[in-house]
Amino acid sequence: MIKVGIIGSTGYAGGELIRILAAHKDAEIVWYGSRSYIDKKYAEVYQNMFQIVDAVCMDDNMEELADRVDVIFTATPQGLCGSLVNEEILSRVKIIDLSADFRIKDVNVYEKWYGIKHQSPQFIEEAVYGLCEINREDVKKARLVANPGCYTTCSILTAYPLAKEGIIDMSTLIVDAKSGTSGAGRSAKVPNLYCEVNENIKAYGVTTHRHTPEIEEQLGYAADEEVMINFTPHLVPMNRGILATEYATLKKEVTYEEVKAIYDKYYADEKFVRVLDRDICPETKWVEGSNYVDVNFKIDERTNRIIMMGAMDNLVKGAAGQAVQNMNLMFGFKESEGLELVPMFP
Amino acid sequence: MIKVGIIGSTGYAGGELIRILAAHKDAEIVWYGSRSYIDKKYAEVYQNMFQIVDAVCMDDNMEELADRVDVIFTATPQGLCGSLVNEEILSRVKIIDLSADFRIKDVNVYEKWYGIKHQSPQFIEEAVYGLCEINREDVKKARLVANPGCYTTCSILTAYPLAKEGIIDMSTLIVDAKSGTSGAGRSAKVPNLYCEVNENIKAYGVTTHRHTPEIEEQLGYAADEEVMINFTPHLVPMNRGILATEYATLKKEVTYEEVKAIYDKYYADEKFVRVLDRDICPETKWVEGSNYVDVNFKIDERTNRIIMMGAMDNLVKGAAGQAVQNMNLMFGFKESEGLELVPMFP
Amino acid sequence: MIKVGIIGSTGYAGGELIRILAAHKDAEIVWYGSRSYIDKKYAEVYQNMFQIVDAVCMDDNMEELADRVDVIFTATPQGLCGSLVNEEILSRVKIIDLSADFRIKDVNVYEKWYGIKHQSPQFIEEAVYGLCEINREDVKKARLVANPGCYTTCSILTAYPLAKEGIIDMSTLIVDAKSGTSGAGRSAKVPNLYCEVNENIKAYGVTTHRHTPEIEEQLGYAADEEVMINFTPHLVPMNRGILATEYATLKKEVTYEEVKAIYDKYYADEKFVRVLDRDICPETKWVEGSNYVDVNFKIDERTNRIIMMGAMDNLVKGAAGQAVQNMNLMFGFKESEGLELVPMFP
Amino acid sequence: MIKVGIIGSTGYAGGELIRILAAHKDAEIVWYGSRSYIDKKYAEVYQNMFQIVDAVCMDDNMEELADRVDVIFTATPQGLCGSLVNEEILSRVKIIDLSADFRIKDVNVYEKWYGIKHQSPQFIEEAVYGLCEINREDVKKARLVANPGCYTTCSILTAYPLAKEGIIDMSTLIVDAKSGTSGAGRSAKVPNLYCEVNENIKAYGVTTHRHTPEIEEQLGYAADEEVMINFTPHLVPMNRGILATEYATLKKEVTYEEVKAIYDKYYADEKFVRVLDRDICPETKWVEGSNYVDVNFKIDERTNRIIMMGAMDNLVKGAAGQAVQNMNLMFGFKESEGLELVPMFP
Repeated sequence: MIKVGIIGSTGYAGGELIRILAAHKDAEIVWYGSRSYIDKKYAEVYQNMFQIVDAVCMDDNMEELADRVDVIFTATPQGLCGSLVNEEILSRVKIIDLSADFRIKDVNVYEKWYGIKHQSPQFIEEAVYGLCEINREDVKKARLVANPGCYTTCSILTAYPLAKEGIIDMSTLIVDAKSGTSGAGRSAKVPNLYCEVNENIKAYGVTTHRHTPEIEEQLGYAADEEVMINFTPHLVPMNRGILATEYATLKKEVTYEEVKAIYDKYYADEKFVRVLDRDICPETKWVEGSNYVDVNFKIDERTNRIIMMGAMDNLVKGAAGQAVQNMNLMFGFKESEGLELVPMFP
Repeated sequence: MIKVGIIGSTGYAGGELIRILAAHKDAEIVWYGSRSYIDKKYAEVYQNMFQIVDAVCMDDNMEELADRVDVIFTATPQGLCGSLVNEEILSRVKIIDLSADFRIKDVNVYEKWYGIKHQSPQFIEEAVYGLCEINREDVKKARLVANPGCYTTCSILTAYPLAKEGIIDMSTLIVDAKSGTSGAGRSAKVPNLYCEVNENIKAYGVTTHRHTPEIEEQLGYAADEEVMINFTPHLVPMNRGILATEYATLKKEVTYEEVKAIYDKYYADEKFVRVLDRDICPETKWVEGSNYVDVNFKIDERTNRIIMMGAMDNLVKGAAGQAVQNMNLMFGFKESEGLELVPMFP
Repeated sequence: MIKVGIIGSTGYAGGELIRILAAHKDAEIVWYGSRSYIDKKYAEVYQNMFQIVDAVCMDDNMEELADRVDVIFTATPQGLCGSLVNEEILSRVKIIDLSADFRIKDVNVYEKWYGIKHQSPQFIEEAVYGLCEINREDVKKARLVANPGCYTTCSILTAYPLAKEGIIDMSTLIVDAKSGTSGAGRSAKVPNLYCEVNENIKAYGVTTHRHTPEIEEQLGYAADEEVMINFTPHLVPMNRGILATEYATLKKEVTYEEVKAIYDKYYADEKFVRVLDRDICPETKWVEGSNYVDVNFKIDERTNRIIMMGAMDNLVKGAAGQAVQNMNLMFGFKESEGLELVPMFP
Repeated sequence: MIKVGIIGSTGYAGGELIRILAAHKDAEIVWYGSRSYIDKKYAEVYQNMFQIVDAVCMDDNMEELADRVDVIFTATPQGLCGSLVNEEILSRVKIIDLSADFRIKDVNVYEKWYGIKHQSPQFIEEAVYGLCEINREDVKKARLVANPGCYTTCSILTAYPLAKEGIIDMSTLIVDAKSGTSGAGRSAKVPNLYCEVNENIKAYGVTTHRHTPEIEEQLGYAADEEVMINFTPHLVPMNRGILATEYATLKKEVTYEEVKAIYDKYYADEKFVRVLDRDICPETKWVEGSNYVDVNFKIDERTNRIIMMGAMDNLVKGAAGQAVQNMNLMFGFKESEGLELVPMFP
């Protein structure tokens, strides 16, 4: 039984970590960090945890945490993990960072898109990008895992096999993504109020969303070329779920069966990626509360394009679930431990 | 490992049984009955079960089921279980009926409120009303359990301790209940369409809802007197959740502490009933996806009334979760096996 | 054409005033007051007004406003109108206050429930409670109108005829009310975030909600006795709409036809109160965007109670629409001018 | 005052026609056709119309209608208008068809995408495609107007100026569209149930949606070349609203100001198309209930693409509003009569 500390435990991703780890056989949370609620009972912040979590919220002391836990999850704003980590801490404890601090290998790209100075660029090279299905072996050996972004996880896994196999013209790739509102976090801002989000859909961050370079970097590794895409996120009136609809021109004529075989090559043995049956479109509701990503595709012979679709729960596979999956790999647990969550419908 | 058969597995309550039993250590579903989808793959009806449930839907053959399973859940319209059950079947298999057929002891009351002729009134006496917190010992010995209704479970548990202890004037009890739309089932009717339910709230079945006599009967046992209430259900634009707001005149002056002590007397040891801290109102979101009922109360000295509130997930504690809780009791499993579901938020 | 000034024009009620007055033949808005957005274009705060409203937001200067407009709407937090009004201003301009400052005749009751000191109690007596259907003649002559609260408008109109005619035992009256989230206003608070409200229902302000004494006072006038009720508001995941479900014991045996005749006596000639046909329950969706209140009732012979129901749009009849209706009365316009809004469905 | 007949008045688009025409100065509805509800009071089908519409539903008799009205709206399934219209009727009455029967000039394309045989292809040539902003002059002279589809109206108007001016490479155009659920109509089907749509987003009709050839044809006229696009609709959990996010490669380097000038060239004088200020993304909520289409764009210099966005209310500008706009043009009324609806927020 390993000991777990969470920094940022009262955000939505933090809360989801606790929901998932509550049923994990090999891990126990001993530190519920939350700068905003220090000394408050965790269950008073999240009443769903009443009589389940008895702890009070603690501060962010990473030094002390390193003494007391085996792994730290940082579910915090960009910049925080980067400002706290150092060699001494990393030598004592594993870190899974749910922020973007260690996701992007080129620190200039990070600093440009995020508009902040990186506080510990010396660890970027070492950090493993924790997209388990792709970097599984590296994750197993990592001290520091950069847990992928929500949009990026969905966007990458949806296109990955075709990028890897060179089936699509990467310069034509367009990702039109739609997310539930929990992705915006729990901060009290007018645009996140119920009445502003409900009965509404909009694009935001058009051409400027920070997940763009992360998708480009990872799909670039897959395609073995520099990739530049359009990524357009949209806010959808629902709590959870991301749907990515992706468009690309095919580099050659392919049949449904050929493309299906490529998806299966990469995902048939992956528990958490489900390649759906022909003509079934992924729906976010079918994966809600689970660690699954559902993917599928449709070839349009008229335009010579392929439309790829992926759906997942942004708080699970897009955040806390994937973080636990990474933890399982890092500690040699069964990869799906704590994650065999059946999607909840309706 | 017992074998389970479900009749009506493609309704929302049936689907929830499967979600819960998928993680149950001691039970395995071997029969997915669904008259509407015979021979269709279950996962094609509910895509969330893709790669989780591999079975195809079967018909309703209770005779054959009795040979093959240890327990049958009937998640079917009123009248069906009553028409299928007989001594021969009951001698071979346990039945947990999620319909109303065996909930009401007076067959005349049943026939009047439901407008149908009961097909097997001879089993009504034997059937145990499966509200586990109240009838635990009887459930353990039962062959036939009448799983309580969704509104009724919430309404009864919210008022039960005060009815039992004679604190409230039962003739003044009013239950104003609010339910998510999954309670209306998965049948294709105009009033259940998205655009008709969304952005809307209404009362329905005012003075005539069928759960009324069930609440009256059970609270009557608790209070040891005949009880007649007003029960008004409302349809709320959300998928899951029931909130009961109940009003009654106090029979004597009581303090917060005294009433709290009464609730604790009955529920302190109950895993699935959480008496909230003072002044915290139950919210359906805090119990979503779990088997909990959250209850609390507020005394109004101005009017000498007490307002009791209870919240639960109608598909879990209000249907499938309670059914599994009953199964656990009937077979001597740990009562919470498969039900230690942490509420999902948001 | 009268000139209108609005203080608090960027709250939800303020925005609704502008939507309604945009189509009003006899009134023109010349002052869009909003302390939070001074000098910002109104249409940048509410993009729906792009190319419709060209004005910029102004401050709260009531002195200057009194020179420039014929009527001021104050759609502001409690206490503000009370702190700004004086004889000199009232002698020059009519005021319709959408806050609670002048709704309650007993200043002690106001100060107790609202927890603030009233700054101009000398105008309380003069202020007319602007529930048009009841106080029409007084409104016509008023300088200062206290526009009723949203819950109160719905709660009072639903029970008024029966209170007035002495049909119900007022000591048994219970109002269980449900409101959409726009009633909580546009302030950025965690409990009003999309993910906190969506898929959730809860009671709040149980026994302590400030609309309680307002309902009690007005129904007290109707019944000609002191009235004390239980009023329990609930937050519903929808933008607009209030539904009041009200319970009372009948003082004598009455038939459906007798009660219907009483409702018709008061409302048959009222354009904005619709007494629905027998057995049709009011739904908030059927009045959305309009100034209607739909009411109906059901007699329960079993319990000798009557269940009354009322539905309206909280931002229209519950705030801005009623305020315009009051304005129309005060200035001798057609009472329904600007308010012949057909409910929007779906 | 002209007389109006509606065939299909109890669908959502039919209901919206009635809501809009209720406030129209020059038109009066005298025939509420609805095959499903013949002889039922219209206000019993749509309670929002209680005390507003007193009529009962009639059948589909176009012959009789031609004698009694000046214009017929057919808000009916594909194929019906085509099967009813003939020269004799058209010589007596104008027809505005909200179905697709006369939208597509090439009858083979219509028959292929819709899978039905056209019953009156001889009128296709004469029919005017009623996208008012583009075909205004032709509409004024038309006997038969093909009212555009909801997705198509939004998709076309969003890209039209750039297609017309040859700024974008039409072979790269991709339309990713999102619609509220009222677009699916009022028929009772499981996929349209509240619990299936709520908390969910999905693509549907990928590569096969029937609005594809309509968009292609109209943008082909604008670009003066054959156009083939990818059009992907998505179902969003909200009642109303369509958002189109469109991607195309720029044919040459352009500045924001140049593109803005092109949009203004076509839309500056158009009341119902609002080109938003720089960097403001259209949101469906800002146009709800109104006849506006809000459009904007963003140039991505990295990828040399332009992202165009358009938002409108699918039932107003996407159906009934545009139909009334067409009627106004056909009868020489003020084009915006009955349509000066301020968007409702929230």
